[in-house]
Amino acid sequence: MKLVRYGDAGQERPGLIDSKGELRDLSAEVADIDGAALAPETLARLAALDTDALPRVEGNPRLGPCVGNVGKLIGIGLNYSDHAAESGMAVPSEPIVFLKATSAISGPYDDVQLPAGAEKVDWEVELAFVIGTRAKNVSKAEALSHVAGYMIVNDVSERSWQAERQGQWTKGKSHDTFAPMGPWMVTADEVADPHDLGMRLDVDGERRQDGSSKTLIFGIDHLVSYLSTFMTLEPGDVVTTGTPPGVGLGMTPQVFLRDGQVMRLEIDGLGVQQQTCVRQAAPTGTSQ
Amino acid sequence: MKLVRYGDAGQERPGLIDSKGELRDLSAEVADIDGAALAPETLARLAALDTDALPRVEGNPRLGPCVGNVGKLIGIGLNYSDHAAESGMAVPSEPIVFLKATSAISGPYDDVQLPAGAEKVDWEVELAFVIGTRAKNVSKAEALSHVAGYMIVNDVSERSWQAERQGQWTKGKSHDTFAPMGPWMVTADEVADPHDLGMRLDVDGERRQDGSSKTLIFGIDHLVSYLSTFMTLEPGDVVTTGTPPGVGLGMTPQVFLRDGQVMRLEIDGLGVQQQTCVRQAAPTGTSQ
Repeated sequence: MKLVRYGDAGQERPGLIDSKGELRDLSAEVADIDGAALAPETLARLAALDTDALPRVEGNPRLGPCVGNVGKLIGIGLNYSDHAAESGMAVPSEPIVFLKATSAISGPYDDVQLPAGAEKVDWEVELAFVIGTRAKNVSKAEALSHVAGYMIVNDVSERSWQAERQGQWTKGKSHDTFAPMGPWMVTADEVADPHDLGMRLDVDGERRQDGSSKTLIFGIDHLVSYLSTFMTLEPGDVVTTGTPPGVGLGMTPQVFLRDGQVMRLEIDGLGVQQQTCVRQAAPTGTSQ
Repeated sequence: MKLVRYGDAGQERPGLIDSKGELRDLSAEVADIDGAALAPETLARLAALDTDALPRVEGNPRLGPCVGNVGKLIGIGLNYSDHAAESGMAVPSEPIVFLKATSAISGPYDDVQLPAGAEKVDWEVELAFVIGTRAKNVSKAEALSHVAGYMIVNDVSERSWQAERQGQWTKGKSHDTFAPMGPWMVTADEVADPHDLGMRLDVDGERRQDGSSKTLIFGIDHLVSYLSTFMTLEPGDVVTTGTPPGVGLGMTPQVFLRDGQVMRLEIDGLGVQQQTCVRQAAPTGTSQ
């Protein structure tokens, strides 16, 4: 299944994309596409529905982030060896883990904000997964059974805020709209091999990233097991697994996003995202 | 007002501590002590209640974390100059910001887990505040109007996971039970000066931390304004503002928490927390 959330920001309703590519409403079945809806028994119930009998959603509503009420948005750093090299960083001996603010999550076609003073906003196409059942100290062998599905996340990053503004990546990873998610979550049963998905990102039609999850250093099963030793993964938690080479930080000279530029992201089987970058007005009187 | 959440973990009900120190139920007034309940108009409505008319809660129920459904749990690093010195770190020129997993939040008297293999678990008594109204690019002058109240957070930290396990502090700050919160949230109107609160932490009756929020490098108003330039602060978001000197990492020789030890935390006007440390059994088969 391709599960979506549609409607105005903050008021999204659950839906699915049927086999003909049409949007169907799921409001009568689940309250939201969130941790509760991602439980295996709920997904099984949804999968058994006659999609032709579900209300068809007319018009062309906004798609919101495909998972709602995300408790944790966990990022993995430098998880592609070529990307580590272009960033001038060593290949990590174990996963680098950071958290993005959940308030950064936005819809797959929503504008990405370029905050005032943020001159180094960069793109990162990433394969993300969402947890369906609670995972605490799970083995690698059982790890994938905790994954409800997969989707694209653009791990938008302000490189100056990330690395030049005192410790920790948090500031550079957490601005509103820095985590476009979707267009849909594809349930795990429909992703034959999450470690063999081509992934591409264009800026204004120019190919910037062209990689594959084949070259992930730490795979999905390893990440679930590893993370579950440091914290309990709850249904609805999202992990975005790192980006392949081709980010602006790694170019010579470095290139960052400008007002009006358009990012287009695609991962095999997971659909397409597209965002326009929009420069924000300068705030007044804040403590920077 | 002193607002609390009481009952079994995950099923807490809202309440308040009345002027006689008795627990009163607020279930008929608000669904939870969360972002919605912390709106100024809701707090005003609660403040106008006749507390004697509220149902008295009998027995001695568990107190849960005093704020529910926390969207972001933001930590500030090295925000006391003496603590920076004892940690061997420079005093930061601007706030160091990190995120703790919200799944780390626990009740003020709940046990603190010492995970298997975690040999450097440390204590940090901290003044925390919770956001009552959305804050985005707010000035320092208007910042405090966005704060609903204050409480204690123990920013429990595993120093090896924080600093010796590849980049970022996330792993060391996010384990379940690493953020005891409470016992209650004191509404901002009852905290005369958040920048003049004595704060103490004992381990097994020995005084380890004895400081005051007077020596905060970056005050609450600065932090709200500063953070609001990097991300929108939402009602129910919690910021824990850093710890004064006296952590185990800074002692010579270093001292860390052992199975069965008891931490007792107190901040003037904000009550007392107490947790027993409990060593966890080793997991099997995980990817560490």
